[in-house]
Amino acid sequence: MSKLVEPHGGKGLVCCLLHGNELEAELEKAAELTKIQISPRAKGDLIMMGIGGFSPLDGFMTKADWKGVCENFTMADGTFWPVPITLDISKAEADSIEVGQEIALELDGILYATMKVSEKFEMTDADKKWECEKVFKGKGEESADDVFWKIALEDHPGVQMVMNQKDVNIAGTVKVLSEGEYPEQYKGVYLTPAETRTMFEEKGWSEVAALQLRNPMHRSHEFLAKIAIEVCDGVLIHSLIGNLKPGDIPADVRVKCIDTLVEHHFVKDNVIQAGYPLDMRYAGPREGLLHATFRQNYGVSRMIIGRDHAGVGDFYGLFDAQTIFDEIPTPADPGKRLLCTPLKIDWTFYCSECDGMSSLRTCPHDKDSRVVLSGTKLRKALSDGAEIPDHFGREEVLVILRDYYENLTEKVEIKMQSHAEASTMK
Amino acid sequence: MSKLVEPHGGKGLVCCLLHGNELEAELEKAAELTKIQISPRAKGDLIMMGIGGFSPLDGFMTKADWKGVCENFTMADGTFWPVPITLDISKAEADSIEVGQEIALELDGILYATMKVSEKFEMTDADKKWECEKVFKGKGEESADDVFWKIALEDHPGVQMVMNQKDVNIAGTVKVLSEGEYPEQYKGVYLTPAETRTMFEEKGWSEVAALQLRNPMHRSHEFLAKIAIEVCDGVLIHSLIGNLKPGDIPADVRVKCIDTLVEHHFVKDNVIQAGYPLDMRYAGPREGLLHATFRQNYGVSRMIIGRDHAGVGDFYGLFDAQTIFDEIPTPADPGKRLLCTPLKIDWTFYCSECDGMSSLRTCPHDKDSRVVLSGTKLRKALSDGAEIPDHFGREEVLVILRDYYENLTEKVEIKMQSHAEASTMK
Repeated sequence: MSKLVEPHGGKGLVCCLLHGNELEAELEKAAELTKIQISPRAKGDLIMMGIGGFSPLDGFMTKADWKGVCENFTMADGTFWPVPITLDISKAEADSIEVGQEIALELDGILYATMKVSEKFEMTDADKKWECEKVFKGKGEESADDVFWKIALEDHPGVQMVMNQKDVNIAGTVKVLSEGEYPEQYKGVYLTPAETRTMFEEKGWSEVAALQLRNPMHRSHEFLAKIAIEVCDGVLIHSLIGNLKPGDIPADVRVKCIDTLVEHHFVKDNVIQAGYPLDMRYAGPREGLLHATFRQNYGVSRMIIGRDHAGVGDFYGLFDAQTIFDEIPTPADPGKRLLCTPLKIDWTFYCSECDGMSSLRTCPHDKDSRVVLSGTKLRKALSDGAEIPDHFGREEVLVILRDYYENLTEKVEIKMQSHAEASTMK
Repeated sequence: MSKLVEPHGGKGLVCCLLHGNELEAELEKAAELTKIQISPRAKGDLIMMGIGGFSPLDGFMTKADWKGVCENFTMADGTFWPVPITLDISKAEADSIEVGQEIALELDGILYATMKVSEKFEMTDADKKWECEKVFKGKGEESADDVFWKIALEDHPGVQMVMNQKDVNIAGTVKVLSEGEYPEQYKGVYLTPAETRTMFEEKGWSEVAALQLRNPMHRSHEFLAKIAIEVCDGVLIHSLIGNLKPGDIPADVRVKCIDTLVEHHFVKDNVIQAGYPLDMRYAGPREGLLHATFRQNYGVSRMIIGRDHAGVGDFYGLFDAQTIFDEIPTPADPGKRLLCTPLKIDWTFYCSECDGMSSLRTCPHDKDSRVVLSGTKLRKALSDGAEIPDHFGREEVLVILRDYYENLTEKVEIKMQSHAEASTMK
């Protein structure tokens, strides 16, 4: 029988979360350590290191790792990694810490980890800009440096996040002390890589695809998942349950929508729903690679990459997150290589001439026959209380979403991404 | 850039067809040789050897090849092959031929090949029965020897063909002298493996799927092809243009239907239509393997295998032609291994609740929502002049088929396969 894909990095699942007595002892020790307040992003990163989702990472990156990852998708030891996983602290904090020292990492009064600091390195504005250009800049003409910087600071949440980082990064291995609110708040949905792997094995799956979700699941997502179900053993519907941007629909509502959709429109045996505790980085194509990298740890060998995957505004070409998979280095050692491959799917929609869901690869009909679906469009229509076109969503799901919007006290205006609505779609 | 899959056998395309002066000289020589009349099946096999479709075969199988293929899918040199490719002659003919002699192979007055006989081996009734049991017998309970033999002689065209073979097989390499009527009669559709490979390369395709067709292409086939288009670089719609059983629709009508369907319902860039010159062997699961084996030579790396692929009556389980791919030997040398893998797709149909095409892997709705499609059902309805249910076919195609049936002078009763209509479909 075929086996699940190995975790990334060739070292099995690297889980930094402590349990039982070890945890007790470390918590006691941590109480005495210098405490550093971390960002919500770092909290998500730590929990992923805790549960093996970021295997083989066992801590925050060194300067050599950071540089290699930005420059060439490769850590210092030659392992593929697409996005820097770094921890920023202020100059003052950095001055109070020695290399070799153990510190405690805290957010909102919760101790998330202890860390043995192995390196401190300054991040000047120039360094941050360099990181942003490497990680967040697209490849189109609109991405010339001056154009990029004219809009990125205003409009790119990923760039904003990096530019707002504090001035020193610290590296070092971590011991993770808490999974935060996830195990309680998302019981049954928050699953660790070890748990999804066990579930896949119990079902006899070896080729598993993952569908990345941060929006409510509409017909287009359903179609992507169903194509994957036709050609793989099963699909992991995997929602971001970390933080995202204002105006996005909260995870608990999205999870309920997926439950309902699976209940009414899927063969349940072929689908598993789960959530992962990361924040969006809005890194477009590189985030697509990150999605594939940590999915490999969850036991997934095919990452569904559709139109404008993890895109932000108009920063990326609609299919840059697909082509980037053909451009990354492939280390000779398979352990160091990204083994989760993309399942690339074109722009999808309902077409009345096709008499069903279709894509630009399969539908030759004209625009008037098509109902073009996008998460942003759906959220905007719901937020405005507008009619949802036929074939756009499933009634069972729309009921939940309408209810959510009707009870929403504070509305956030939803900006349409111009190219998501491109009139150039043939 | 990725490359097309290598031809089967690790020796490149092995093409036994002669051209130009070589052909002239061989034809002159052949006129003087002992002529053996061959079957239409052998003609198809020879043309495939001629154009490289049967690479690495360069002649008919020896007894050791025949035995290994029947017993364990493996020729004497360890190369995978799923179905015996043998040449039968009568005892009297065999007595008139010496091992080492060159002979000419003829059908309907056309010289198809010369052959240097390397071996003669008797095929007793017991040998033929043994071949049939190995090659044609399914694995279900209904396949106990006595049950199988009670119905196979009456109802299994593949078994009938083998049992009616003459009493001696001869082995030896061939030089092929003619492609018969195919290049003229199916101009633009009859393509050689070298031609399809060039076309794929020109399109920049590396992962190509093939859809096997011997019936008019209906919505279910369209759906299979479109799933493959979503996940591969392109699809070869590949029709059998050799001989099939009475009541089947002739190749020229089927080709016209495909042209129309592609014209109106496909993105033309993602599809190539072609035909191959073999007769049906009706070998069910083993024929599915043969389809994948020769498709590999055409440059195809994914063979679409749906419900009851190449099935005959109720002889095989509906998905035996899928599971057999997991049961074949995988020689260590990749050249000797089957590299064209199955793209397994479940029973497909239109479902009004799904609001489109669906399969048993994706549709949880009940029978009443489904319009179940089958080629046999379609041919029967057309032959009876019955109404075609909504969503069953495309109007543009039905027009052609209705026209064909209206002008048909001699009707053949179409037997429904009981399990193709199984009321057990949940």
